[in-house]
Amino acid sequence: MTKETINIGLIGYGTVGKGVVRILKSSSKIIIGKVGKPIEVKSICDINPIDKTELYVKDFRQIIKDPDIDLIVELIGGYEPARTIIIESLKAGKNVVTANKAALAKFWGEIYTAIQTYQKSVYYEAAVGGAIPVIAGLTEGLAGEEILEIKGILNGTTNFILSKMTKDALDYKSALKEAQSAGFAETDPSFDVNGIDTANKLAILASLAWGSWIKVKDISVSGIADLDIKDVSLTKRNGSIKLIGSAVKMKNGIDLSVQPCFIGKEHPFSSVRDEYNAVMIKGKNSGDVLFYGKGAGQGPAASAVVSDIINLSQFMVTNTKGIIPDIIYDPKIKNQILPFSKSKAAYYLRFTVSDKPGVFAKLADILGKHKVSIASLSQPNISRGDFADIVIITHPSVLEDLNSALKEIKSLRSIIKSAPVKIKIETF
Amino acid sequence: MTKETINIGLIGYGTVGKGVVRILKSSSKIIIGKVGKPIEVKSICDINPIDKTELYVKDFRQIIKDPDIDLIVELIGGYEPARTIIIESLKAGKNVVTANKAALAKFWGEIYTAIQTYQKSVYYEAAVGGAIPVIAGLTEGLAGEEILEIKGILNGTTNFILSKMTKDALDYKSALKEAQSAGFAETDPSFDVNGIDTANKLAILASLAWGSWIKVKDISVSGIADLDIKDVSLTKRNGSIKLIGSAVKMKNGIDLSVQPCFIGKEHPFSSVRDEYNAVMIKGKNSGDVLFYGKGAGQGPAASAVVSDIINLSQFMVTNTKGIIPDIIYDPKIKNQILPFSKSKAAYYLRFTVSDKPGVFAKLADILGKHKVSIASLSQPNISRGDFADIVIITHPSVLEDLNSALKEIKSLRSIIKSAPVKIKIETF
Repeated sequence: MTKETINIGLIGYGTVGKGVVRILKSSSKIIIGKVGKPIEVKSICDINPIDKTELYVKDFRQIIKDPDIDLIVELIGGYEPARTIIIESLKAGKNVVTANKAALAKFWGEIYTAIQTYQKSVYYEAAVGGAIPVIAGLTEGLAGEEILEIKGILNGTTNFILSKMTKDALDYKSALKEAQSAGFAETDPSFDVNGIDTANKLAILASLAWGSWIKVKDISVSGIADLDIKDVSLTKRNGSIKLIGSAVKMKNGIDLSVQPCFIGKEHPFSSVRDEYNAVMIKGKNSGDVLFYGKGAGQGPAASAVVSDIINLSQFMVTNTKGIIPDIIYDPKIKNQILPFSKSKAAYYLRFTVSDKPGVFAKLADILGKHKVSIASLSQPNISRGDFADIVIITHPSVLEDLNSALKEIKSLRSIIKSAPVKIKIETF
Repeated sequence: MTKETINIGLIGYGTVGKGVVRILKSSSKIIIGKVGKPIEVKSICDINPIDKTELYVKDFRQIIKDPDIDLIVELIGGYEPARTIIIESLKAGKNVVTANKAALAKFWGEIYTAIQTYQKSVYYEAAVGGAIPVIAGLTEGLAGEEILEIKGILNGTTNFILSKMTKDALDYKSALKEAQSAGFAETDPSFDVNGIDTANKLAILASLAWGSWIKVKDISVSGIADLDIKDVSLTKRNGSIKLIGSAVKMKNGIDLSVQPCFIGKEHPFSSVRDEYNAVMIKGKNSGDVLFYGKGAGQGPAASAVVSDIINLSQFMVTNTKGIIPDIIYDPKIKNQILPFSKSKAAYYLRFTVSDKPGVFAKLADILGKHKVSIASLSQPNISRGDFADIVIITHPSVLEDLNSALKEIKSLRSIIKSAPVKIKIETF
């Protein structure tokens, strides 16, 4: 590359896009030091016309076509036209930086094929874990590792809400409102709170780890909206409840889930509060490696986008295809996905029952019959009126056994007041 | 590169070297998937002849000269002949992977020049933090960041010893013996326990962060051998004592130190136990990013070496110079190093004093006179006989002020039994 500057076309000028422009400017000395030449934003496209009229371009296709633009930064999110932007940019011979976990998880195979066909790169460090360099950590840092497990707190919004629920004893709705006013939750927070955002990120990490395309539909997903403040309070003394994305390579296949889990105080995730994210990767030889940092907010996400731009630019000035950390996908590799019902874990169970003799024994009897063994059993609160809460911690049990037991218990109308609550216990 | 295999010359066949050979074999499928061709160890050199006689070469120069060897892995440690091996390998047109923090920290400038001159690469992820990909995290993941702080638990041996002292109430010598029998401390553990190993790693991270060559002699270093079990016990309820390497960019320069510090329970380092390492890097936009994993042992170190080999090989098959994460060093950049005496921190102080009225007041008076203000003051144990311990927690104070105060206090022979103890308090 003989040009004097590297020119960027920025598509999507929201919070992160504005952060990227700001950091490219404030880090210009660092950039020249590392890349050898300046990186400049030549064109910006957004649904809304922007102030800097001299940079504004209405149609993203115009930016992709511009022969003077070397690298496209896609920050509009969602499936389309993000997919078109990524694919068409590669086709036009341009490298791409994106933060779009949804499009990556959904079009992984197609993006991979476009990268191979057009011999250009897509970098996406900002798509998972904000400023945390976990994509590079997994693909480069643990390049030779047989990956055994990936577990993560991958969504800043839900972690912020759960932290508020725990710390300030707020119910879900009040905590969500606080997250919205602090700028950590969108007006429509569905993708965050229902676990889909976490599942997108988990699908990307799992695909990188095991070489086949692991899809969101392979993951059993449940969110945090149904979480009862009572369970947050009851577990608070010993730890906290977090939304965990988990991918574990078992003998028979990969066990994939996103669900609220109880995290004990001794677990490294225990201190991951507010908008922070953390990812724990267990390699066969490396052991556990943990990455931790801010998973939401302008600075962290924009910082990761800028790092990708710099890293790709270093390849571009030497006319090299960026090799790492591109998409890893071998269509020949087939990974078995374990049915969620076969997964095994210890659980926190809460039953609201009639406060009369024999109920403990009845519950224990049904659980035992379904091969669920009890680690501890307690009645945490003094009963109010006719009903009492019973909390049971199980030993590791197969989920379908536990579900059969809970179904039978739920049918005991005379002693059970409401549907039993179950929360997985994440161990370390 | 048109050859069928990538051939490695391994110099140094101790614990880590054996691990590298083992992982290269067990990860051979992963390697072919990523690199496109197998990586094989062609020759091994060690002070002691090894079993696999067909691979054994007595003189490392023979390996460096061998035109069939593409990459040299240096794992002998120490300054020489490690320096010669690294420089001569580059000169011979070969890439180098090393885990040698001592040689890197000492010969940073010379190695940088050789890399530039011969256009080959030196990768060294295993030199800092074992399996933790912190070198890549800093140079790539945070490529565009203005780095503000680097703090780390960088030595597995000392962290193991301190964990034993805290958990099992062992004194330093007994804890060291346990570390030695667990394989986490050498027969001569001086470089670990006196803080030099941590200083080597801190010098590497700081040089990468700020672009000038930061040397071990720029760092104020103190180790853990003089740590009194009494202070470990007294601080245990609120946290623990860890050996911390710290590099902070201040207005007037960089503040660099290695010293035992008190870490409160709310600090993310608090849960970093035994042989684990952790590094916290604060970027201006990224905020705090933490990396955590095993810092000692065969698997973690060998895993990082193998990752470097794979990453470099990916460049080699495309005939590209590996760009990242090579050495960053710009001789034109001058960073001011702050004199340690000017650094500011809160401290834990312990005085063993005559148990008589007026002593508290006397200590408080002298500290105040030297501009050291007191955050809390307590007498933790019931006094035994004529002497009592007094623990003072200070507000952030300038070290030279504190030292003058301690000097004056120490001279009060009538009330002070032994030299005052001071331990920095690391905040988050």
